[in-house]
Amino acid sequence: MPKNYMKVERIEHGTVIDHILPSRAFDVLRVLRLSSDRSMSILVNTHSKKGGKKDILKFEDVELSAEEANLVALVSPQATINYIVDGKVARKFQAETPKVVRGILTCSNPNCISNQNEPITTEFKKVSDEDQRYVCSYCERDIVDLVNRIGARSANE
Amino acid sequence: MPKNYMKVERIEHGTVIDHILPSRAFDVLRVLRLSSDRSMSILVNTHSKKGGKKDILKFEDVELSAEEANLVALVSPQATINYIVDGKVARKFQAETPKVVRGILTCSNPNCISNQNEPITTEFKKVSDEDQRYVCSYCERDIVDLVNRIGARSANE
Repeated sequence: MPKNYMKVERIEHGTVIDHILPSRAFDVLRVLRLSSDRSMSILVNTHSKKGGKKDILKFEDVELSAEEANLVALVSPQATINYIVDGKVARKFQAETPKVVRGILTCSNPNCISNQNEPITTEFKKVSDEDQRYVCSYCERDIVDLVNRIGARSANE
Repeated sequence: MPKNYMKVERIEHGTVIDHILPSRAFDVLRVLRLSSDRSMSILVNTHSKKGGKKDILKFEDVELSAEEANLVALVSPQATINYIVDGKVARKFQAETPKVVRGILTCSNPNCISNQNEPITTEFKKVSDEDQRYVCSYCERDIVDLVNRIGARSANE
């Protein structure tokens, strides 16, 4: 069997997002909106050492900003972000949901001004750490099901 | 560095789709419509031994039917399908575009009966091997840009 069927190239520099909820890697990609010409590996429903399943994302030569990394928590709260330098984990931290989210989520209220084709960037503010509740800054609608609200809505699109 | 950052588990049984055009792995997934609770690895823009870049898809414990495998050629004509049994390549072949495609592509003609919310499954027939031309069985519209026509349209959806 050719070698490349067995292994993925080791990342020398880049970012590894580990402990993503199973099947959520695609939602993480949607939230990060990285261009698809990047080098990346996506492991979906792979076995976790702790038991159960998880997803892993590896981006070569990409260092996510803390702001980008925290967006991951919107769709997978337990994810860890690892920066790889010279083949080693140089820094590791757990993604935390951001206080404010702009231009990433869409409001579920069809009458919200952000859904009226106005030149408006959506904005949601976190109201509770416990249950990941966000509220629309325009109409104050509660957004609970964040995964289903991913969709760019910003003024310059 | 933890081991799991360096390698992907070897597939013992399953299907490896190799030599996918760079950045086309996601289109291959859309065309195959496998459920997202599968175990899979997706390598995007990885280095090819022949030079250049390619994508690779590995599905654990999935044996694609010849019919499914050939759908891959709609979005990545040079892709090869490898069936892995007991860790070895048991069979290998190149995907070939199917003669008829049902329920996978949508017609680009807005007036086509298949776009009128009728209980109809889309159907396209291959007219030319050279340039991957398909023609709608209902309105005879030529479909050239297949990647942008992926979208389920079948009678029972």
